[in-house]
Amino acid sequence: MIITLKKGTDAKSLDTLTQWLRSQSIEAHVSEGEYSTIVGLIGDTSKLDTDLIQGLPMVENVTRISEPYKNANRKFHPDDTVVDISGYKIGGGNFQLIAGPCSVESREQIISIAKDVKKSGANLLRGGAFKPRTSPYAFQGMREQGLELLREAKKETGMPIVTEIMDASHIELFDDVDVFQVGARNMQNFELLKELGKTDKPILLKRGLANTLQELLMSAEYIMAGGNSKIILCERGIRTFEPAMRNTLDITAVPLLKKLTHLPIIVDPSHAAGIADMVHPLSLAAAAAGADGIMIEVHNDPQHALCDGPQALTPERFDAVAKDVMKIIGITGKTMNGAEK
Amino acid sequence: MIITLKKGTDAKSLDTLTQWLRSQSIEAHVSEGEYSTIVGLIGDTSKLDTDLIQGLPMVENVTRISEPYKNANRKFHPDDTVVDISGYKIGGGNFQLIAGPCSVESREQIISIAKDVKKSGANLLRGGAFKPRTSPYAFQGMREQGLELLREAKKETGMPIVTEIMDASHIELFDDVDVFQVGARNMQNFELLKELGKTDKPILLKRGLANTLQELLMSAEYIMAGGNSKIILCERGIRTFEPAMRNTLDITAVPLLKKLTHLPIIVDPSHAAGIADMVHPLSLAAAAAGADGIMIEVHNDPQHALCDGPQALTPERFDAVAKDVMKIIGITGKTMNGAEK
Amino acid sequence: MIITLKKGTDAKSLDTLTQWLRSQSIEAHVSEGEYSTIVGLIGDTSKLDTDLIQGLPMVENVTRISEPYKNANRKFHPDDTVVDISGYKIGGGNFQLIAGPCSVESREQIISIAKDVKKSGANLLRGGAFKPRTSPYAFQGMREQGLELLREAKKETGMPIVTEIMDASHIELFDDVDVFQVGARNMQNFELLKELGKTDKPILLKRGLANTLQELLMSAEYIMAGGNSKIILCERGIRTFEPAMRNTLDITAVPLLKKLTHLPIIVDPSHAAGIADMVHPLSLAAAAAGADGIMIEVHNDPQHALCDGPQALTPERFDAVAKDVMKIIGITGKTMNGAEK
Amino acid sequence: MIITLKKGTDAKSLDTLTQWLRSQSIEAHVSEGEYSTIVGLIGDTSKLDTDLIQGLPMVENVTRISEPYKNANRKFHPDDTVVDISGYKIGGGNFQLIAGPCSVESREQIISIAKDVKKSGANLLRGGAFKPRTSPYAFQGMREQGLELLREAKKETGMPIVTEIMDASHIELFDDVDVFQVGARNMQNFELLKELGKTDKPILLKRGLANTLQELLMSAEYIMAGGNSKIILCERGIRTFEPAMRNTLDITAVPLLKKLTHLPIIVDPSHAAGIADMVHPLSLAAAAAGADGIMIEVHNDPQHALCDGPQALTPERFDAVAKDVMKIIGITGKTMNGAEK
Repeated sequence: MIITLKKGTDAKSLDTLTQWLRSQSIEAHVSEGEYSTIVGLIGDTSKLDTDLIQGLPMVENVTRISEPYKNANRKFHPDDTVVDISGYKIGGGNFQLIAGPCSVESREQIISIAKDVKKSGANLLRGGAFKPRTSPYAFQGMREQGLELLREAKKETGMPIVTEIMDASHIELFDDVDVFQVGARNMQNFELLKELGKTDKPILLKRGLANTLQELLMSAEYIMAGGNSKIILCERGIRTFEPAMRNTLDITAVPLLKKLTHLPIIVDPSHAAGIADMVHPLSLAAAAAGADGIMIEVHNDPQHALCDGPQALTPERFDAVAKDVMKIIGITGKTMNGAEK
Repeated sequence: MIITLKKGTDAKSLDTLTQWLRSQSIEAHVSEGEYSTIVGLIGDTSKLDTDLIQGLPMVENVTRISEPYKNANRKFHPDDTVVDISGYKIGGGNFQLIAGPCSVESREQIISIAKDVKKSGANLLRGGAFKPRTSPYAFQGMREQGLELLREAKKETGMPIVTEIMDASHIELFDDVDVFQVGARNMQNFELLKELGKTDKPILLKRGLANTLQELLMSAEYIMAGGNSKIILCERGIRTFEPAMRNTLDITAVPLLKKLTHLPIIVDPSHAAGIADMVHPLSLAAAAAGADGIMIEVHNDPQHALCDGPQALTPERFDAVAKDVMKIIGITGKTMNGAEK
Repeated sequence: MIITLKKGTDAKSLDTLTQWLRSQSIEAHVSEGEYSTIVGLIGDTSKLDTDLIQGLPMVENVTRISEPYKNANRKFHPDDTVVDISGYKIGGGNFQLIAGPCSVESREQIISIAKDVKKSGANLLRGGAFKPRTSPYAFQGMREQGLELLREAKKETGMPIVTEIMDASHIELFDDVDVFQVGARNMQNFELLKELGKTDKPILLKRGLANTLQELLMSAEYIMAGGNSKIILCERGIRTFEPAMRNTLDITAVPLLKKLTHLPIIVDPSHAAGIADMVHPLSLAAAAAGADGIMIEVHNDPQHALCDGPQALTPERFDAVAKDVMKIIGITGKTMNGAEK
Repeated sequence: MIITLKKGTDAKSLDTLTQWLRSQSIEAHVSEGEYSTIVGLIGDTSKLDTDLIQGLPMVENVTRISEPYKNANRKFHPDDTVVDISGYKIGGGNFQLIAGPCSVESREQIISIAKDVKKSGANLLRGGAFKPRTSPYAFQGMREQGLELLREAKKETGMPIVTEIMDASHIELFDDVDVFQVGARNMQNFELLKELGKTDKPILLKRGLANTLQELLMSAEYIMAGGNSKIILCERGIRTFEPAMRNTLDITAVPLLKKLTHLPIIVDPSHAAGIADMVHPLSLAAAAAGADGIMIEVHNDPQHALCDGPQALTPERFDAVAKDVMKIIGITGKTMNGAEK
């Protein structure tokens, strides 16, 4: 961390600052110049409050050089984290396809889709029971009943289930759920993150619509600070000025997160563009960029899906995507884990 | 709502569509052209699911012409909503200053600031007890104890209190709180909004960092759909590419929301820029643009504030802002309600 | 400037770096820590190339602490620059209203509007002759003929003229023009900026749609490096994710630029929102935030304007805006310069 | 195009509107509803001015359904355009690697790099002679002398050259240049686009930092309206709120542009992230997403490059990228054109 002092800061103020820093186990190196004095902080600054220092009267500005996250930081944990979901691994060279409908709509629907996507190579089943919808008048999901149908699909197919949790009070309802999904709108629902940190189930943490990569890692840090390190990060598109697509898939997030953290990173190409025709090319791009998995919306009857129909693939189209993705991961050196299980 | 059909849509498909629309009490007017066929929908389309229609195989695109919100829509409720907070009115020409520290830190702190800002003209006291912080290592607020101190400040000064709620399970803890504040990060925490819709207390709803005005109004609609119409909207800056300020205050949101909705709109200039020196000019700009109130962070010792020190004003600087704001609202025809109480 | 070195940088590499810096008259202060070594640079770093240093193999990252602009920097030129346009001053407490049509359309149109806006208090006449239009099929302005009509309006009313230049090869055509306007799309047309730096006429430099304040000041620096310091900066809205308005007026840019630079700053509320109804409130907000002037589109027949009709005011509405703006600048301590001339 | 009329528009006004539209060869289909009247426009609306219509007093809003570009529109030109650069084809299944330094720095440098990248599979040589730099104090390119060195490299290696043009007055200097590159900052330099439309050389048109895909196509339309259809579009990253990378590569632009236009689309992964380590994964992602080519910065001594060192690859790293890209395009069904030449 670098502190730039205001011109004319006196020696006594500076001394008070360096002593306070020392009390926090931080060494301060002072460089005095004509226009400004710079103080370089050496030590573990991850728990220092930038705002607090910025508020000091002598301070012109504060620049953080090292990352404010520790548990999620690759610098301190160079090896890839591998998240194991009932035997299916993700991260550390293991790749997974996660597929299923936006919303669970009926027993027939979820089981039929589950069987189809499994045949094409997806090992994990996704499906929304609790749905965050912009409008109070839109379908809000089947809720408890949806969870029940997911359990039945799991029994029928053996596929672990991934489904979204919207409120900490629902945790116990998610008993048989294998992966808690935290949606983009809840990426900074800190009360929820704290509670999930106390569980020991894998968390699929989606990046918020306008959150930085550092904020995503800080949200992972919230969960890890509670003791749960089974986190899968998910890039699902960010909000920009471009009106031709629902969101802008930030593909660079994949290799950049790989550098910054040891946690696995997957991509959701369905929500990113919100256009079914874009899912195939974006899935290949995600695999080529080094993603550890891809999560795709598949519906047996996209025209009549109760939500997000325009972005869902039919099982046939999903099968074509899966085949091409397999070829790409061959090039990037990953393997579809569990295929041989 | 306008539906553009794909070239070559046959008469039978079109007929199925118009019949289905009729079953939803929507009249369809069809205009056939060389390159495309356009279907104009006449009727209450606010509950139609755009995604569902977009998913139909014959549909090229869907454009919503009328707003998807009804209760919050000025078209259907031309008169300004006036929210009454223990006798202090906001909206309909009534202006309020809301002030106080970012976080409640101690009994002395909150009472001393409350007395100061009251003297300068603020009728409502703000102060955070539950604090949403990006880092799990930052001060998270005094929580229940903070609420207790706010109650004491209220008793001491008679000022109604505004404080942030982060989780639906906390509602009962907020017993004596006068206004529930929903923070930017929770603007689309729909489970929380639904629960707040069942209460009858005023809600101060902050716009999310990257949410559109329509999404803000849809979140208000969530609360109103539950039966609670006492909503105060708050513009607090949006996220853009500009690094010189924490957020970009969207000042146009004030007059534009005034056109779209009958709900009162206030501005939070402290969080918008995140720079104390900007609070004075931005407060005047907000008042000049027609805001119904301004919410400002004030701290008796900003250098040692436990959070957001850099953006807090001292009571002296707040007093200067308040004096200038009074002059501006004289020009825009608003009155500081409750001054004469 | 702060250079953070990669872990494990050896003493010899560090020595080469500090010697090279010394050859550039920069003193390097080195602070070695456990995880990283920090080098603080003291001296005039405005001409150092950040990219060059970032490219060195030993460097982890480079952070600029001081601004890369010198001529435009308030730190080195604390007094406000006052730009004098044929006797009408802008900056240093002097405020100006600039008004006129988006495009010059006919002799009658431009003279009639000029007379109207002058009566309401505008001292400077704006009007486009060369028009940058997104579509090649849209009206491109009357070009040379438009300049001729502006000259006639100037002769008739005595108002200095402000009009946009789109290409360096046109400079000589702008003979009688009083202020060269550089449009948002040309803010980084560096060949044009260099040529304008060689003239001695005032330049009204608009901020680009997605340019930072620092980039705006660097573009001003291009002009100043050529010897011309008569620059008026103009905030005209930036591009964000919000679809309800054409651009988002960045009102904070006004007080923030005031801190960073000594150059005068005006606001263009017409282009900012692109909605006529927003011009009145945004003009008041701009004046309240401390702008040195406002530039407004006025048309005697907005419905039939050849471009940007939706954002133009009628002369009557402009008159109402001007009256309220006068009241606001009374509060901020500015005066409408030239009124008494 | 859809026009929504204000509530209460009388029959006479509506009649005037429909008659005027008919005079523009546009048929108007009127649908009257309770809250609004919708007018559907059938015919070639690409030359209608949306702003003009929006300005009419009876109009509430105007929505364009069909695209405002015609020449660039795939609807009217379903077959892929193939641009031929001295025998090297791009588009229509033909893929090209374009490589070279950010700036031409010396004879040795450009020839050495040219030979290296040619060996790895690049058929076209890039290199900047005229450099748009944010700072007037940064290296501005070798200008005419740089063009001369590019000509020598072309003579030596037979590689056609791609280099940036910044001003229409320079066109004649670019005599032996094979492809005019229009940089992001000049994408809407309409005077330059008009002049380039009169030439018959291929144009590599980069998307602006904050321009929509439609605006990019409108800029292509400017060139095409002048008679030149040899246009290669280039996605090079857009500006977002994310500070961890210089720009955000909009990978979805590739498949989306493929749908909207018949023009070839390439990607510039070097400028997109501004980080050398990201070039390899982003290149693979671009190829996987269906790009017709990739343009990469390569420098034999990146640490000492005069500009943009941090994003340049060494020839060795470029070779590794080229090998992997070849594998990917095998999957997407494209071929590296000219390899067998």
